[in-house]
Amino acid sequence: MKLLSQQSSFGGHYIRYQHASSVNHCDMVFSVFIPPQALRSPESLKAAPVVYWLSGLTCTDENFMQKSGAHRVAAELGLILVAPDTSPRGAGVPDDEDGAYDFGLGAGFYVNATQAPWATHYHMRDYIVEELPRLVQTKLSIQGPASISGHSMGGHGALTIGLSNPDKYVSISAFSPISNPVNCPWGVKAFSNYLGSDKETWAQYDACSLLSRESLGQAILVDQGLDDQFLEAQLGIPALQKALKKHGDSARVRMHAGYDHSYYFIASFIEEHLRFHAEHLASAT
Amino acid sequence: MKLLSQQSSFGGHYIRYQHASSVNHCDMVFSVFIPPQALRSPESLKAAPVVYWLSGLTCTDENFMQKSGAHRVAAELGLILVAPDTSPRGAGVPDDEDGAYDFGLGAGFYVNATQAPWATHYHMRDYIVEELPRLVQTKLSIQGPASISGHSMGGHGALTIGLSNPDKYVSISAFSPISNPVNCPWGVKAFSNYLGSDKETWAQYDACSLLSRESLGQAILVDQGLDDQFLEAQLGIPALQKALKKHGDSARVRMHAGYDHSYYFIASFIEEHLRFHAEHLASAT
Repeated sequence: MKLLSQQSSFGGHYIRYQHASSVNHCDMVFSVFIPPQALRSPESLKAAPVVYWLSGLTCTDENFMQKSGAHRVAAELGLILVAPDTSPRGAGVPDDEDGAYDFGLGAGFYVNATQAPWATHYHMRDYIVEELPRLVQTKLSIQGPASISGHSMGGHGALTIGLSNPDKYVSISAFSPISNPVNCPWGVKAFSNYLGSDKETWAQYDACSLLSRESLGQAILVDQGLDDQFLEAQLGIPALQKALKKHGDSARVRMHAGYDHSYYFIASFIEEHLRFHAEHLASAT
Repeated sequence: MKLLSQQSSFGGHYIRYQHASSVNHCDMVFSVFIPPQALRSPESLKAAPVVYWLSGLTCTDENFMQKSGAHRVAAELGLILVAPDTSPRGAGVPDDEDGAYDFGLGAGFYVNATQAPWATHYHMRDYIVEELPRLVQTKLSIQGPASISGHSMGGHGALTIGLSNPDKYVSISAFSPISNPVNCPWGVKAFSNYLGSDKETWAQYDACSLLSRESLGQAILVDQGLDDQFLEAQLGIPALQKALKKHGDSARVRMHAGYDHSYYFIASFIEEHLRFHAEHLASAT
């Protein structure tokens, strides 16, 4: 692993790493925030709880770290934050042929692609669930319990990855998630290309489908702005609310008047998400 | 004035406006954050205290609003934030002939240029001190007392504009300011081009020169990172410390181990700056 940069922030360290990814067959970059509490000793670093953050379309590992204001809260709560990139990158990684923002580079949709030419590099599901945590645990010696959160495409990632891996993520949260990708233009485009036509494969990557089949292993918190420009066409929030209903009080979807799809919405409520995760992570240790 | 966008943030409104500038002879854009307290009534909007933020080289009106985390604190304290652009822009506005980042577009240095071809558009001093506050007062009906802050080139702007206008700004703060531009490469390049060779004109735009001549009309808070990559060559902090010494306890320069020149430094300490201004603004009303 190559250390790209290290900066002080709220008494902690904001660090970016690059590494050769064996699942994505390219170099990947990810960001880590280490709170001051975890810098005190190797033991405190090893034990500190971790929140993985998955970003949305067009983002990299940096957007959340720059714009969410999460460092302040993580520094208070002693949370480590890990933010991966949103797709494989680099020479040889295929992109949407028209360079569209919603597919290809910056738009890996957190799936393992099965179709050519995407299947060679686009294995973001395995990257998030297997390779990245293994690197964090072995190379950075960060081994505390983990939760997962994300925004938009990353909210879809957090929900589907969290629901499919209750042993690995203590709690799940999402902002403005693409909740029912099998039924929206962004999801249908991405899944058709990455996964082909088999709808059973699609369902493994659809939060609403997963919720309809399984019991709920974790607490879930979802925040959604009512002035979100993608609310009607892309996000499938009514389907999510319906799918969550049968799981009772451990899953909450909160609607917020006036808020849109931007990082100003995330910044306004990230403190509540990190406190939600910190509480559940504390019970897990 | 044209409203470009309005977004909810921390219960307040983040708004961007465009207007024809009579002093810069081009269209200018600025950003405003209105805290929830000021949205309650026309009277509360009119009376709310204001902090003007001046950004650094390469920035626009947006960087501070996106990356500083200031909305959260301003929403708590009831402060209005106003952030202008860092130079005139648009067709016909001349730029550095090599497109350098440290002169021309994005680098107006908060002076009134006297030299061709800059003197036609580059009147950022008059824009910040006269035209922008007049627009804020008359078009937005925001008429509370004001303080001023900024980063790097904007720290230079906040110090020089604040010191020269004690009747207009209740308190002054700066992050990593270019404190002695007449003695650093960034300042010498900008002042030579914008102002010509008259050193008396330069001195009006040099915080250290101003502090050596006048008594101090306001409290000043300056924060500086010790890992700042521009600390030695550009910022002149020792000269600032020397110039402030004779003014006693109302001016503080705090040095912070580990912090660099980035927005992570600003984000880490913006809360203390806004509380500093809120306190002084409260005494002013």
